[in-house]
Amino acid sequence: METMARVTRKEHFSAAHRLFDPALDDAQNFARFGPCSNPGGHGHNYRLEVTVEGPIDPSTGMVLDLRRLHEAVQELVLDKVDHRHLNSEVDFLRGVIPTTENLARCIYQQLEARLPAGRLVRVRIDETDRNSAEYGRSDG
Amino acid sequence: METMARVTRKEHFSAAHRLFDPALDDAQNFARFGPCSNPGGHGHNYRLEVTVEGPIDPSTGMVLDLRRLHEAVQELVLDKVDHRHLNSEVDFLRGVIPTTENLARCIYQQLEARLPAGRLVRVRIDETDRNSAEYGRSDG
Amino acid sequence: METMARVTRKEHFSAAHRLFDPALDDAQNFARFGPCSNPGGHGHNYRLEVTVEGPIDPSTGMVLDLRRLHEAVQELVLDKVDHRHLNSEVDFLRGVIPTTENLARCIYQQLEARLPAGRLVRVRIDETDRNSAEYGRSDG
Amino acid sequence: METMARVTRKEHFSAAHRLFDPALDDAQNFARFGPCSNPGGHGHNYRLEVTVEGPIDPSTGMVLDLRRLHEAVQELVLDKVDHRHLNSEVDFLRGVIPTTENLARCIYQQLEARLPAGRLVRVRIDETDRNSAEYGRSDG
Amino acid sequence: METMARVTRKEHFSAAHRLFDPALDDAQNFARFGPCSNPGGHGHNYRLEVTVEGPIDPSTGMVLDLRRLHEAVQELVLDKVDHRHLNSEVDFLRGVIPTTENLARCIYQQLEARLPAGRLVRVRIDETDRNSAEYGRSDG
Amino acid sequence: METMARVTRKEHFSAAHRLFDPALDDAQNFARFGPCSNPGGHGHNYRLEVTVEGPIDPSTGMVLDLRRLHEAVQELVLDKVDHRHLNSEVDFLRGVIPTTENLARCIYQQLEARLPAGRLVRVRIDETDRNSAEYGRSDG
Repeated sequence: METMARVTRKEHFSAAHRLFDPALDDAQNFARFGPCSNPGGHGHNYRLEVTVEGPIDPSTGMVLDLRRLHEAVQELVLDKVDHRHLNSEVDFLRGVIPTTENLARCIYQQLEARLPAGRLVRVRIDETDRNSAEYGRSDG
Repeated sequence: METMARVTRKEHFSAAHRLFDPALDDAQNFARFGPCSNPGGHGHNYRLEVTVEGPIDPSTGMVLDLRRLHEAVQELVLDKVDHRHLNSEVDFLRGVIPTTENLARCIYQQLEARLPAGRLVRVRIDETDRNSAEYGRSDG
Repeated sequence: METMARVTRKEHFSAAHRLFDPALDDAQNFARFGPCSNPGGHGHNYRLEVTVEGPIDPSTGMVLDLRRLHEAVQELVLDKVDHRHLNSEVDFLRGVIPTTENLARCIYQQLEARLPAGRLVRVRIDETDRNSAEYGRSDG
Repeated sequence: METMARVTRKEHFSAAHRLFDPALDDAQNFARFGPCSNPGGHGHNYRLEVTVEGPIDPSTGMVLDLRRLHEAVQELVLDKVDHRHLNSEVDFLRGVIPTTENLARCIYQQLEARLPAGRLVRVRIDETDRNSAEYGRSDG
Repeated sequence: METMARVTRKEHFSAAHRLFDPALDDAQNFARFGPCSNPGGHGHNYRLEVTVEGPIDPSTGMVLDLRRLHEAVQELVLDKVDHRHLNSEVDFLRGVIPTTENLARCIYQQLEARLPAGRLVRVRIDETDRNSAEYGRSDG
Repeated sequence: METMARVTRKEHFSAAHRLFDPALDDAQNFARFGPCSNPGGHGHNYRLEVTVEGPIDPSTGMVLDLRRLHEAVQELVLDKVDHRHLNSEVDFLRGVIPTTENLARCIYQQLEARLPAGRLVRVRIDETDRNSAEYGRSDG
């Protein structure tokens, strides 16, 4: 049976956001998104997990040096979102409703361009202890 | 490479149960299930995770509104199991030995009938911090 | 040796905030508060713990019914802060820099007025997994 | 300023219970205890923390050998409550409504008789992730 | 749609290790592994999760008795690694750089030989709260 | 009733250690410390909590800037113990059996000398999820 190896790096960031569609007014946004559409916004401590796959390099014993993965996530994601407002201050979220699903998808796309092809498996985000989303390869 | 999005909702419930097969006597049940067959029963704080898959709707940024998923889990599962005895008080567990595996399977079947076809991926239950079971699509 | 009993209720809320002093400009606020003063704000999943002391009532086996404590915290605190911006939308935080220390102090004062005299021991808030504050009786 | 050292051992057990006063009927019990009085019972994964104080013995570097504390808790508490029904199967809980407060108090009394005088500081029990009780020295 | 059931057992062990390649000198090892190559070593509380798949046996309600799985993990893994130095004291790690990836792979191979064919799905190890690795079937 | 405010900063480090008294031989050390005296050593992910007390400064809303506390802990503790062997590589532990109690005591003394007088309340260390020690003011 074929086997595979994966590594996962977990990071954290704190940000504000508001769920709303600029094409709708506040009442319509409240109907769609409930208290998450509060015009003053609210925020979360987000937990971010990035999973990468590949052969274990015999000279290092690693799939990928997690310090390198950490540096990529720091530069491409954390430096842009931590202590920021997700609706207005993040280039890679422009024009996107900042749901957990869209956050996971956009962070996946940020990282995919930087990592060696075929390595990135999945990005998972916990918005709270109860609500999570993941975006990744449909075979992963 | 094909990609996909998933969301997971985590819930909690507290219930009593006893592992035993009514076709066996207490000594035989003890031989099979150990202290989990104690006739007086015991109980757990169960952690329940429900994972759903699908395209991200561009008008909401969501795979599925997690408030809707929460309501379905509340009505179909939590209202029936929380603060209950799983061997005798839960309709969808009638005739079933309430192991973590069977709990996951029966809750999966409860939810599958209500959710849009093809959306439900997996139900996972942590019975304790050390023992868990999941039931779901074999391609998921 | 004298003994005592205490109960603790844990709650959660998600809110946005910004650390800044309106008497200072943005550069001065950045010097004092660093990235926490980002004008666009950021946010957290706050964990709130309320601890109450007293004799165990022999007819209920309780120091205080935690469902009652939950209702008081819901009405006096959570309904006002959850999914809100702490700098502008919370009556009991008006004029206060919303640090974790001040949050703990103001929530303590909210609850003290409602609970029977001498019962409230401490309010503890975890802003993140690394930073916490508590406010309470100096003998508690 | 005087200083002191303490050690804490954390244990777990799973048990069933029901909050009810045998002097009341089911309706009266429901009025007092809500769903916790469900006649079929329910259960929890209890987390138990025992805290002990004393000087650090220079020949061992310890306040108390936590393996010894573990053995005492195992014999005096865990062997009696784990996988049991707290209302009917535990000698040291006989005649007591098994609230978290009473559990903490009775376990404190079980351990106090065994440990060297003046060492036991506090017993804390988490019934769920939201509800906890502690019982201990009023100066601790 | 095909469905499947899985169970997961979580264990813990504490061990020392050092990342280094004996073919390199200390400076070269530092260049490759950073502070993880400190000659004096360091250590971790490792969290180990073993996942097994199979049909739910109707006479037990189980995929596999988790007490049996615990005993196998205890004998084949925990008794060899807990409170040990992974570079020098573990037979199944001889000649291997003890990264999290290699640990997961070697533990998978230890367990695969003992478990019924086709049952073992995956071994996951958390080295810290931030860094994890898993090794398993490429279709799992 | 008098009130007070406290803040707590949580940090992590990974280190190797061995419990043994150099005045004893290996067999005597095993009799006293069990598997913790394994000559090859073992290790842990330590969790460190530092608690500080004081008035809330109205111009900052803080008891103490937790970024300053983090820097002090980084320099005086983490830079010396993280990824190190506690028996041989840490100046402030020289001649001390590195139990959790002694670690807490020595870290308390490291920090007390640096922090403003009367501010440091307590240092708490979790060696594992089950064993913890704290050292601090006997009135705290």
